[in-house]
Amino acid sequence: MPSERHRLIQSRIDAVGIDLGRSAPGGAYASVVEESGILYVSGMVPALDGQVAVAGKVGAEVSLVEAQRAARISTLRCLAAVGDHLGDLGRLRKVLRVTVYIQGAPGFYQLSEVANGASELLNAVLAPDGAHSRTSVGVATLPRNAALEVDMMVSIQPA
Amino acid sequence: MPSERHRLIQSRIDAVGIDLGRSAPGGAYASVVEESGILYVSGMVPALDGQVAVAGKVGAEVSLVEAQRAARISTLRCLAAVGDHLGDLGRLRKVLRVTVYIQGAPGFYQLSEVANGASELLNAVLAPDGAHSRTSVGVATLPRNAALEVDMMVSIQPA
Amino acid sequence: MPSERHRLIQSRIDAVGIDLGRSAPGGAYASVVEESGILYVSGMVPALDGQVAVAGKVGAEVSLVEAQRAARISTLRCLAAVGDHLGDLGRLRKVLRVTVYIQGAPGFYQLSEVANGASELLNAVLAPDGAHSRTSVGVATLPRNAALEVDMMVSIQPA
Repeated sequence: MPSERHRLIQSRIDAVGIDLGRSAPGGAYASVVEESGILYVSGMVPALDGQVAVAGKVGAEVSLVEAQRAARISTLRCLAAVGDHLGDLGRLRKVLRVTVYIQGAPGFYQLSEVANGASELLNAVLAPDGAHSRTSVGVATLPRNAALEVDMMVSIQPA
Repeated sequence: MPSERHRLIQSRIDAVGIDLGRSAPGGAYASVVEESGILYVSGMVPALDGQVAVAGKVGAEVSLVEAQRAARISTLRCLAAVGDHLGDLGRLRKVLRVTVYIQGAPGFYQLSEVANGASELLNAVLAPDGAHSRTSVGVATLPRNAALEVDMMVSIQPA
Repeated sequence: MPSERHRLIQSRIDAVGIDLGRSAPGGAYASVVEESGILYVSGMVPALDGQVAVAGKVGAEVSLVEAQRAARISTLRCLAAVGDHLGDLGRLRKVLRVTVYIQGAPGFYQLSEVANGASELLNAVLAPDGAHSRTSVGVATLPRNAALEVDMMVSIQPA
């Protein structure tokens, strides 16, 4: 039976109002690997039902607001992968590291503002345990022309 | 004496048919750092005998097939660094995280396909323990114009 | 009371001669997250007193020498964040992973040389425990047009 903490987190995720649909890794790798109380979550592009929902260069074809939505989608996909792996999101303890790779247009430097889309969601959904370290960088290209990609490491409670 | 698992992994590595030659870190850092059962492996470019073997932009000067070979070389170099550090590759437990940085040409989005060169090698060589999380991104430039760079974290068995 | 090791490290940091001034995370995240003896340090741009001190493309507006100074500033900021978190830098055990993201001009491939600015500082300040794994990549853009960004993971002694 899912824990009370699971139900709280899930209700907050539902309140974000984004339906991820189904997804699977885009290659010969695992969405999550667990070792010694840490989950390593693979890079997630902003896909809904397996299709990249926000594609293009941020600051050109993709606005800041759209990019922040993309960051929310990718972050929700990371959390969904954690939930699928654990069965109970209440076992998520801390988000240790979030890396946000942004496919920015030349001269677009509001990368922290884009990445705040991920951070604010984590802070809201996992409160009071949403604190996380973060790195945001602007990359040249991303798989399937995705506007951004998010990966993370999280720690978990023993089952 | 190397373990049976070491000999199995090494025979599979030999079967890939790539002779790495000698190599050393390209700067004032270590190839591997160990802490609490985890090895942190430095970013490896596709070098053979210390020379970058696959250079240029993937999707322009470097084809997808050549880039997949580059991914195999870099991955083998990571495994070689692990083997040198441990003495016995049989102690490798899980590959936790692989990051594949690809020097792609503008408009080249088959980054997952390139990174599969790394993933498929890990899956084959380390079977049945090759599962790993992965992040693939297209970067602007890489050291010595390398076509790609791979780093990883792996967990190990106690000695 | 700070340990003798803390005083040694701090005196070496002071000897670098860079005054960082005050700083805070550039978004809704934490500078450092601690879990199970590991600190995850957020990506640090070369800011002094909250302002990016080295901005632009390395190899164009920013010289190699200036970029190496930027790498020292970012690395010192990472160490300062560790020191603020721990209270005692003497508890820093090993630097596990350093990632150096460099905003390089097209055709600028001396990324390892730039990253050596970070590595040489770590080796000097933390001797004999400065060894670290490293990944250096050239990215398209960085927050606030910073010339580079450095993040790291370090292990610590129990308090």
